[in-house]
Amino acid sequence: MEWHEIPAPAVQRLSLYLRGLHELAKDGVKKVSSRFLGKMLNITAAQVRKDLAYFGQFGHPGVGYRVEPLMGELRHILGTDQTRPVVVVGAGNLGRALLRHKEFRARGFKLVGAFDVAPNKIGRKFGQILVQHINEMPKVLHEHHVKLGVIATPPEAAQSAADALCAAGIKGILNFAPTTLQTPPNVAVRPVDLAAALEQLSFSVRARR
Amino acid sequence: MEWHEIPAPAVQRLSLYLRGLHELAKDGVKKVSSRFLGKMLNITAAQVRKDLAYFGQFGHPGVGYRVEPLMGELRHILGTDQTRPVVVVGAGNLGRALLRHKEFRARGFKLVGAFDVAPNKIGRKFGQILVQHINEMPKVLHEHHVKLGVIATPPEAAQSAADALCAAGIKGILNFAPTTLQTPPNVAVRPVDLAAALEQLSFSVRARR
Repeated sequence: MEWHEIPAPAVQRLSLYLRGLHELAKDGVKKVSSRFLGKMLNITAAQVRKDLAYFGQFGHPGVGYRVEPLMGELRHILGTDQTRPVVVVGAGNLGRALLRHKEFRARGFKLVGAFDVAPNKIGRKFGQILVQHINEMPKVLHEHHVKLGVIATPPEAAQSAADALCAAGIKGILNFAPTTLQTPPNVAVRPVDLAAALEQLSFSVRARR
Repeated sequence: MEWHEIPAPAVQRLSLYLRGLHELAKDGVKKVSSRFLGKMLNITAAQVRKDLAYFGQFGHPGVGYRVEPLMGELRHILGTDQTRPVVVVGAGNLGRALLRHKEFRARGFKLVGAFDVAPNKIGRKFGQILVQHINEMPKVLHEHHVKLGVIATPPEAAQSAADALCAAGIKGILNFAPTTLQTPPNVAVRPVDLAAALEQLSFSVRARR
């Protein structure tokens, strides 16, 4: 099966498995069963085994999974076995929080640039990253071989941010602006709509009553 | 069909439809076809009709959907037809960005409290919200009838934040901490793992090659 044919929920759970394995590794655990890993993450053992089997034969009969090697495999699949450079467009409250978000570094991403158009933001530093004018973006993307960009602009500026990123050769966009972007087919876009996440939570609470 | 049986992707797209309808309403548009709404959001017309049909008969033959009434229906389904109060636990970079995030208010959520345990954060104001000690939480939840809470703490503090929220009677938690929470079955938890979102984007870029 080609990677792009694998069901999205299975791919999403890879991040969860990697997170669980990371916790185990921190505690010095060397081997883990699908049952134990699943229990940590509120997932059944069968689901763990099925998801991982899409990508390879990682389990060892009578042993389970070896924690460090499986982490290496998952990082390789997700593309974080080497540090991936990332830029952020939009240095408002959310953009600044993302620039200072320590978890990105721990998970294999390094923020290498931040861009805005507002004169009062350009030249400021957040989490060691200098905010530059968006016109400087192509140079920074080229210098650091950046393939991933984050849009944290207001919604009305998101499409032009996306256009600039795509023109500069970006391959993937994480879009925090609550708007649907029009992008070329060779660019992957992943929306993160925080208000929609709250709406979905509100629905879940209503649906449980 | 009961609400909790409706496929999650269909429920997720309700937020997208509401966002699209909101844009149309701002432009003074009164009626919209499933085809046009779908085109705005990169979704097929058939998918739009199927998703909405889970919740009711909202379309009118030869007319399509009436924008304002459908927005009202979707808000009712999502529970945002009245303003929902929300609290945030954790007043670090991300928590502060969430307290200042204007989109929440526009989408029917009002932040009414922020909590932390760090003395240097307690007593500060972000986006008009005073950060209080977490011991004050039960009082605030009760006063404002809060059912939804956001966890924006470091991962090691997330479970105790969840315990405090659950003990105070919260019904839904949006969890930004990259850790799996153990909560009572009557509490809905929705994880938002920002580093995982970047991992998933990285995977999508790799899978397209």
